[in-house]
Amino acid sequence: MSASYVALSGGVGGAKLALGLCDVLDDPARLTIVANTGDDFEHLGLKVCPDLDTLTYTLAGLANPETGWGRAGESGAFMEALGALGGETWFFLGDKDLAIHVERTRRLRAGESLSAVTAALCARLGIQAHIVPMSDDPVPTVVETPEGPLAFQHYFVRERCRPKALGFRHEGADKARASSAFLDALATPDLGAVIICPSNPYISIDPILAVPGVRAALTACEAPVIAVSPIIGGQAVKGPTAKMMAERGIAPSAAAIAEHYDGLIDGLVLDEADSHGHDDDRAHGRSRLSPVPCSRLPRESA
Amino acid sequence: MSASYVALSGGVGGAKLALGLCDVLDDPARLTIVANTGDDFEHLGLKVCPDLDTLTYTLAGLANPETGWGRAGESGAFMEALGALGGETWFFLGDKDLAIHVERTRRLRAGESLSAVTAALCARLGIQAHIVPMSDDPVPTVVETPEGPLAFQHYFVRERCRPKALGFRHEGADKARASSAFLDALATPDLGAVIICPSNPYISIDPILAVPGVRAALTACEAPVIAVSPIIGGQAVKGPTAKMMAERGIAPSAAAIAEHYDGLIDGLVLDEADSHGHDDDRAHGRSRLSPVPCSRLPRESA
Repeated sequence: MSASYVALSGGVGGAKLALGLCDVLDDPARLTIVANTGDDFEHLGLKVCPDLDTLTYTLAGLANPETGWGRAGESGAFMEALGALGGETWFFLGDKDLAIHVERTRRLRAGESLSAVTAALCARLGIQAHIVPMSDDPVPTVVETPEGPLAFQHYFVRERCRPKALGFRHEGADKARASSAFLDALATPDLGAVIICPSNPYISIDPILAVPGVRAALTACEAPVIAVSPIIGGQAVKGPTAKMMAERGIAPSAAAIAEHYDGLIDGLVLDEADSHGHDDDRAHGRSRLSPVPCSRLPRESA
Repeated sequence: MSASYVALSGGVGGAKLALGLCDVLDDPARLTIVANTGDDFEHLGLKVCPDLDTLTYTLAGLANPETGWGRAGESGAFMEALGALGGETWFFLGDKDLAIHVERTRRLRAGESLSAVTAALCARLGIQAHIVPMSDDPVPTVVETPEGPLAFQHYFVRERCRPKALGFRHEGADKARASSAFLDALATPDLGAVIICPSNPYISIDPILAVPGVRAALTACEAPVIAVSPIIGGQAVKGPTAKMMAERGIAPSAAAIAEHYDGLIDGLVLDEADSHGHDDDRAHGRSRLSPVPCSRLPRESA
């Protein structure tokens, strides 16, 4: 019997590693990918879950390879018509993409949980791995800026991350419950590892960690918790991670990522470019930081 | 000061006459077109108002000239993606068309009335005539069939009018109020005429007449009420009017249309093919049926 794995994911980087994990696992059904839902919002009356969708499209082979988000071969007839009617067009919803928002919203209004809707849609698209929301309860990320608090997508998409991010709030986190599929996956006796994807730590992973019980469950699980650095050579591969670190007075580096996850992770996978100076056995609480070559990522034998 | 006009409309035939009325009026803003909303339904979580939309697209020059409904140059990427997700695809919503349903639904949920949303969308599209719903309250048409009652669009689109229509119920009509724009237009002192468009009398016009106060207001208004026959030479120009008449044991004819509106109309506009035998001054209650040549349709002088 092969081991099972849990990955925590948000954004395009998270989805790309999740796809890689599916590729290296003999049985992708042994992988549970927990999606950040802090980005979720209601837009045009539709429930939009960007990180769930990016994972879904990526694992279903439907993702736009240029952007990493959205769907390949997408069209914008809806958006153009909406603009002509005076509707809001700052958040692009492609014609194909719209289907998942409409169908999800319909099913949620009919009383299904976000977990159940996600599982059903993924099954329809032939995805073998389990994509699960961190919680069925809304935990919207709010960005504190010098101009006041901004709803996440207003900061991220409408303002293109222009305002300085002073901090992030995870609204409703205190009352939220982790999804049962998430907690069950962490409690599986044959858990081989928990992988923290190379996602933005502040806006993709911290929302997951903010859900009550998640940190405790990660600390309690015997399997190693391994993060993959989103910073390579002082740069984020994609997105505003480096900008956000700089705004907090933190020099963007793999070491700073390790510091961020201090007490939570057993290892950090980083690029060879970042490996110098990190083999000095510094201990950070529970963490003993060790550059883990990619060949040591969990790989199953048949 | 030119006279004002009110047209009662449903379906493609109604929208086409409404467009013609706009063309012959010097000031289309003097025309109020009252749309049947008995066809309206909630589908995929969206409020869909087919007759309002057909009028809107027709008067905005956006309608599909082949079908009469929907938009020209429409695409189906959303629908195809929805089908792949297991969603309902029996009611086609084109990518462009979707914009009006999404925007309307959002605004209705935000508390705007259907009248207000319709007026705003029509203004955005540069429509000068006033398209108004018969009521801001839902009055869904239910079709009684040998297989039991069917929601209107289930009968009309999903079942393609296959079941025999035993009768039609206008649910909620007893509690509905006619829209104020409708009542105001009928009460305008300079009202020149009320035109009943060549729409299906059972499923387009009767729902409007079922709204409390409408029949009384039509009977009370001094302006002539003139219907345009949807039946020409025993055939409906479009749609199931003739089939429905036959199912009720009524031979489809312009005379039968006049009979249907007996007591309500002052004149019937019919095709020359149907004019023989109707110039015998038969009186039907209030109605004195007179074939009115098209040249006698209200036409304004500048």
